[in-house]
Amino acid sequence: MEKPKIVEELEPFFNPKGVAIIGATNKKGKVGNVIFENFKVNKERGIFKGEIYPVNPKLAEIDGIKCYPNVKSLPDGVDLAVISIPAPFVPNVMKEIAEKGIKRVVIITGGFGELGEEGKKLEQEILQIAKENGIRIIGPNCVGVYVPETGVDTVFLPETKMDRPTSGSIAFVSQSGAFAAAMLDWAAMAGIGIGKMVSYGNKIDVDDADLMEYFMYDDQIKVITLYIEGVKDGRKFIEAAKRVTPHKPVIALKSGRTEYGAKAASSHTGSLAGADVIYDAVFKQTGILRAEDFEHMFDIAKAFAKCKLPKGDRIGIITDGGGAGVMASDAVAKFGLKMANLSEETLKYLKENFPPHAVAGNPTDVVGDTDAQRYKVAIEGFVNDPNVDGIVIITLFQVPLLDEMELIEILADYAKKSEKPIIAVAMGGKKTEYYAKILEDKGVPVYPTPERGVRAMAGLVQYAKYLEKVEGE
Amino acid sequence: MEKPKIVEELEPFFNPKGVAIIGATNKKGKVGNVIFENFKVNKERGIFKGEIYPVNPKLAEIDGIKCYPNVKSLPDGVDLAVISIPAPFVPNVMKEIAEKGIKRVVIITGGFGELGEEGKKLEQEILQIAKENGIRIIGPNCVGVYVPETGVDTVFLPETKMDRPTSGSIAFVSQSGAFAAAMLDWAAMAGIGIGKMVSYGNKIDVDDADLMEYFMYDDQIKVITLYIEGVKDGRKFIEAAKRVTPHKPVIALKSGRTEYGAKAASSHTGSLAGADVIYDAVFKQTGILRAEDFEHMFDIAKAFAKCKLPKGDRIGIITDGGGAGVMASDAVAKFGLKMANLSEETLKYLKENFPPHAVAGNPTDVVGDTDAQRYKVAIEGFVNDPNVDGIVIITLFQVPLLDEMELIEILADYAKKSEKPIIAVAMGGKKTEYYAKILEDKGVPVYPTPERGVRAMAGLVQYAKYLEKVEGE
Repeated sequence: MEKPKIVEELEPFFNPKGVAIIGATNKKGKVGNVIFENFKVNKERGIFKGEIYPVNPKLAEIDGIKCYPNVKSLPDGVDLAVISIPAPFVPNVMKEIAEKGIKRVVIITGGFGELGEEGKKLEQEILQIAKENGIRIIGPNCVGVYVPETGVDTVFLPETKMDRPTSGSIAFVSQSGAFAAAMLDWAAMAGIGIGKMVSYGNKIDVDDADLMEYFMYDDQIKVITLYIEGVKDGRKFIEAAKRVTPHKPVIALKSGRTEYGAKAASSHTGSLAGADVIYDAVFKQTGILRAEDFEHMFDIAKAFAKCKLPKGDRIGIITDGGGAGVMASDAVAKFGLKMANLSEETLKYLKENFPPHAVAGNPTDVVGDTDAQRYKVAIEGFVNDPNVDGIVIITLFQVPLLDEMELIEILADYAKKSEKPIIAVAMGGKKTEYYAKILEDKGVPVYPTPERGVRAMAGLVQYAKYLEKVEGE
Repeated sequence: MEKPKIVEELEPFFNPKGVAIIGATNKKGKVGNVIFENFKVNKERGIFKGEIYPVNPKLAEIDGIKCYPNVKSLPDGVDLAVISIPAPFVPNVMKEIAEKGIKRVVIITGGFGELGEEGKKLEQEILQIAKENGIRIIGPNCVGVYVPETGVDTVFLPETKMDRPTSGSIAFVSQSGAFAAAMLDWAAMAGIGIGKMVSYGNKIDVDDADLMEYFMYDDQIKVITLYIEGVKDGRKFIEAAKRVTPHKPVIALKSGRTEYGAKAASSHTGSLAGADVIYDAVFKQTGILRAEDFEHMFDIAKAFAKCKLPKGDRIGIITDGGGAGVMASDAVAKFGLKMANLSEETLKYLKENFPPHAVAGNPTDVVGDTDAQRYKVAIEGFVNDPNVDGIVIITLFQVPLLDEMELIEILADYAKKSEKPIIAVAMGGKKTEYYAKILEDKGVPVYPTPERGVRAMAGLVQYAKYLEKVEGE
């Protein structure tokens, strides 16, 4: 695929050769200090490979790095500016940026359109300068960009306040800055790898459509997640989504669904939320998967990051706890999937290799005295059965005779060699979390309840069906 | 209230003076060994205060405790027997138990009704002996009883496999043993206190109705949770629920809701699941709250354990992240609650005490540069507003100027002194979990997403409305 212009335009946001930090300061905890420190520490760690240019007329240097009095005095080679000075000063700095020939700007500063007419006028002024000079802007009123692999980190919350997730194959775009921060913090704990995060705030320029398109050509990114309160340019969004979704899954969490939510959204980012049915229709038409809440969004994203796509909607369930098997079966119905009818061969194979009290069927219940090998028999049967499209494996690691590491190796092995998606569910406490983490690192997504595991599988099925439809067109 | 007979009948299950462990063994990891060790260790810890009598004809002692060759040879004062010998031997032991005058029996052993006709005949034989001799049975095919306060623990999974939760005010009844074990393990991690857990398996005698009634008179228990696959005696269940729910909330998770789930349930515990609409009607009629999944069940249970009941359904939301406020507003609509219309006085009070960029309203957004005192202003306003029945407070602890401990003290203080229920939502990672734990220990329930926080509040509202209805009758 020939890459569109947007790819080149956005690239420096994620991997700049030189970053100017306008408003950098040595006052600990201030926004301009945290962002400067993020880059500096990442450079010391060998992750950020570009140059760092703090800009502050009152300082000669910050933490041993030379400080520039203004944009004009910067050396050549700056391809990204991060601005955290008060809103009224931003238009003037934008003019200097234009003169200097810097083409990418992240405006962290708040106090613009979200506060009313005066702020909107400032935004217009800034945008005008950008348009005339071919500058692309992320923000204002945002936390900006986080890329673990290149060390770009404009999130102005220090590591003492917020953990950073490791690198991975999920792109995360968020209209809300606080939500983005909370989510990164959560993703770090949950072990969810984020390839690139962009929080664009008032999005006067770069928007969801641009970012979707960029991520489509980004080899690191397997799945795109969006937290949206309102879309400004509906047509642009729809056209971009239509181009992207046949190549990569896009999952959207759109809040302001209800009258109450829409009202709250309008006083938050000034978004006119629009009738929710319209968003529903747009998402459906463009193949975007809609998430109910953030757990749902990342549950599905994790499945896409790790699983193959199913060929159909017939689900097989294996469990060592009957109750969990019942819950998973309920979830299969609830999320519009089908319980697979196991073939006669599979049932025969299972019965021949199971003790009499284990239950061959769908769900297959290896029961509470299972060892890892009995699971292996079940998985072998399900993987080879042409009537099964996707497999949900519930492992209550608590059962007494189960060697946890042996089972983990078996699951990881089948997830790798089978053409079918394999999703694991593990309910329990600290020990379960420990083993779940190991299993995820080996490529099998793990969910804490049968409902959430089956719901993630339903996301894979929904996207696979969409692909089938667009390929048939 | 005069206590019914069932209270006295079940009491020794939860606090026996002497427990006979029939099938106790010195073989590590075996069911009869784990159960024996549970009681022995809890006695050494000073938690279990009764006597322990292992029964095994082949051993003179286990771990220094005298072993008895049979039931007949046991001393007087045994008021509970726990059986873990193979199913075919159980009827004979039951006869000995009857002769000895022991009136309470937990039958852990599986291989009864769940395996077919022969097992059902064994169950009938056992039940017959029990009925003729006034013996009450929990089980068979179960994990039995766990009571942190008295040290009763028949859960045959050692602590190396499964953590135990601390003592608390939630009673947890589970038809499924593996589910019960996974849930105890999870509750331990989540910091959810369990007062008493009973997993009754095939429930040939003691059932949900008996246990609900017992817990109604149990001062430690504030809320009763049930995981049910099928109810055997519908009339008894309904009558008991009607007596219990005006005094304590009961939350039921009933699986086998769909055709798929019902089929799976019938091959698990042999439960005839029955049409789900009937269960829905019964729950509604008897005031039982129905949970969607186990997270939902314990989310609500935690709210009942810690919160006062709301006087109505008008919810106020306070947040430091606009996006989270939008999500919470959506959830208020989704779960059938109302957004409170703040009084003019409250709005005036908030505006007078807020900086201009904070948003006074519902939601009230104290915004990302908030400190703890700005939250205090908001809470003070909401607590004093007669138009607000319940308060959901979203704290993204990540924001830079917020002193977490100061906010925690403020929240705990208002939760104690206000007559309104206060629920907290904290999204984030490890630091958030750390602070959430402290806040919960101080009496404020904390939820990881706005949806789950508002859904828990909806549980409180639903129960408060039910109470209003029955009190009006």
